[in-house]
Amino acid sequence: MTFYLIGIDGGGTSCRAAVAAPDGRILARAKSGPANILSDPETALSNIADAARAAFREAGLDPDTIAKARAVLGVAGHNVGDAVEYVKRWLPFAAADIESDGLIALQGALGDQDGSVAILGTGTIYVSRHREEVQYAGGWGFTIGDLGSGARIGHSLLQESLLVHDGIHDPSPVVSTVLSEFNNDAREIVEFARQAKPGEFGRYAPRVFEFAERGDAVAARLLKDASLTVDEALDLLVARGTKKICLLGGLAPFYRSWIAPRHQSLLAEPEGDALTGAVALAVARFGRRPEAMA
Amino acid sequence: MTFYLIGIDGGGTSCRAAVAAPDGRILARAKSGPANILSDPETALSNIADAARAAFREAGLDPDTIAKARAVLGVAGHNVGDAVEYVKRWLPFAAADIESDGLIALQGALGDQDGSVAILGTGTIYVSRHREEVQYAGGWGFTIGDLGSGARIGHSLLQESLLVHDGIHDPSPVVSTVLSEFNNDAREIVEFARQAKPGEFGRYAPRVFEFAERGDAVAARLLKDASLTVDEALDLLVARGTKKICLLGGLAPFYRSWIAPRHQSLLAEPEGDALTGAVALAVARFGRRPEAMA
Repeated sequence: MTFYLIGIDGGGTSCRAAVAAPDGRILARAKSGPANILSDPETALSNIADAARAAFREAGLDPDTIAKARAVLGVAGHNVGDAVEYVKRWLPFAAADIESDGLIALQGALGDQDGSVAILGTGTIYVSRHREEVQYAGGWGFTIGDLGSGARIGHSLLQESLLVHDGIHDPSPVVSTVLSEFNNDAREIVEFARQAKPGEFGRYAPRVFEFAERGDAVAARLLKDASLTVDEALDLLVARGTKKICLLGGLAPFYRSWIAPRHQSLLAEPEGDALTGAVALAVARFGRRPEAMA
Repeated sequence: MTFYLIGIDGGGTSCRAAVAAPDGRILARAKSGPANILSDPETALSNIADAARAAFREAGLDPDTIAKARAVLGVAGHNVGDAVEYVKRWLPFAAADIESDGLIALQGALGDQDGSVAILGTGTIYVSRHREEVQYAGGWGFTIGDLGSGARIGHSLLQESLLVHDGIHDPSPVVSTVLSEFNNDAREIVEFARQAKPGEFGRYAPRVFEFAERGDAVAARLLKDASLTVDEALDLLVARGTKKICLLGGLAPFYRSWIAPRHQSLLAEPEGDALTGAVALAVARFGRRPEAMA
């Protein structure tokens, strides 16, 4: 019996799927809407199925045969318990494993090598693998985690703008852009921040990097604080034996020059993306060992 | 015509009222439930009236005569616009001014002298007065303000506990108390923090001070960071000409020894409390100048 493999990279803004032959050769890719299994499992299930069917169609395959396929899904919020079990039960595949978005990113970036990835985006999470053992650090979300993330950098910029507004800190160009955006009204900034989701704070992060490049002292201080938290996490990865680190996520290119000199020689370009990683895990679990199928 | 003056100190946990003769002599005090005009104006209005009536009763006066009284109210969140106008319209007094809790605290602490108060509690706000001019700094709430507050100190402790949990930071006794309270389960800490109100974070603050006293290095580092934000705000007060600063609020006694040496000689004990300050403002506005009444 021939069956296909599916890799899914499910995120808060979109869900990507790839269909592959049992040997892992990717036949087609496709994309659908958000797949956050924690905040909205029904929509996630529907978009996961849509992306998979679209990939099958794109490959010239009958979309209904996704029901015979084996899949590995990488999803944000996978470590939050009940939602995973619920989604797993209702997935339209013959067999499926749900993993963290961090693990499929690691597999995509490093292939089967040992090493680590630092995913620096709206949030931050660190994943390392040594001799089959996978370990995580960070990734606890905006409220008391995700240090160094875009959301935290944006948050620190807005906080700084209030200190400048009150006269407690000296002004700087990057802070002035924020103050004029909010009509120099501290109450508007506070109101925005009270409602803002992590992604909305995170939209300020690239601006902080850009102004720091141009010599803005406040932007540079905020990024020095942020990179310190990243370097502390990288120290942990190194202590665990990592000899290769890939920076991933939207802020990776921005962060590259801010990483401490002691880590620069460990930084490497990723081999592939998270979707490639999901497919590779599907091959390892379902492609080469058909006897392990459910 | 004889009328009485009322001072109100309305806070998020209780509302206190004092009734005074037109010369400011306090006849009685009383207390009722929460009066947060921003989050729940109806309950605030009801508790303000209840506290005032109870004070009148306590003084042997007919509680219905609050309708002829003139009041000054100090309330948290007074600077947030519409709620103040709404509450002012429905207050059961002949005339009333609504001021910030910071201003009545300043009046209570300093009387008619120039100087400043630093209110260090669940939140932080700084109020200074020089030659009739009153200026504020801080007090913008937990999300992107209230640096150095109990809520922010508690938040930093919980954040630290995740870093220790992940192995990024070294453990310390104060962090261990948090981890065991949450069964060493990072997810429990995250879940608590996602739901926690500022007051719930703030309940951890005294513990941080206590452990720092006993030599806990992590607690000391968190408090060094927190006191830096307080000292920066005090620098602003000094730059504005303050020669006397009263530390107020639940954390004032804890903070005293953490304030930088350059500010220690400016610290002074408050003359009276916020309720006394509200009555004093009522005397100034309504007691001595009956022609200014509404």
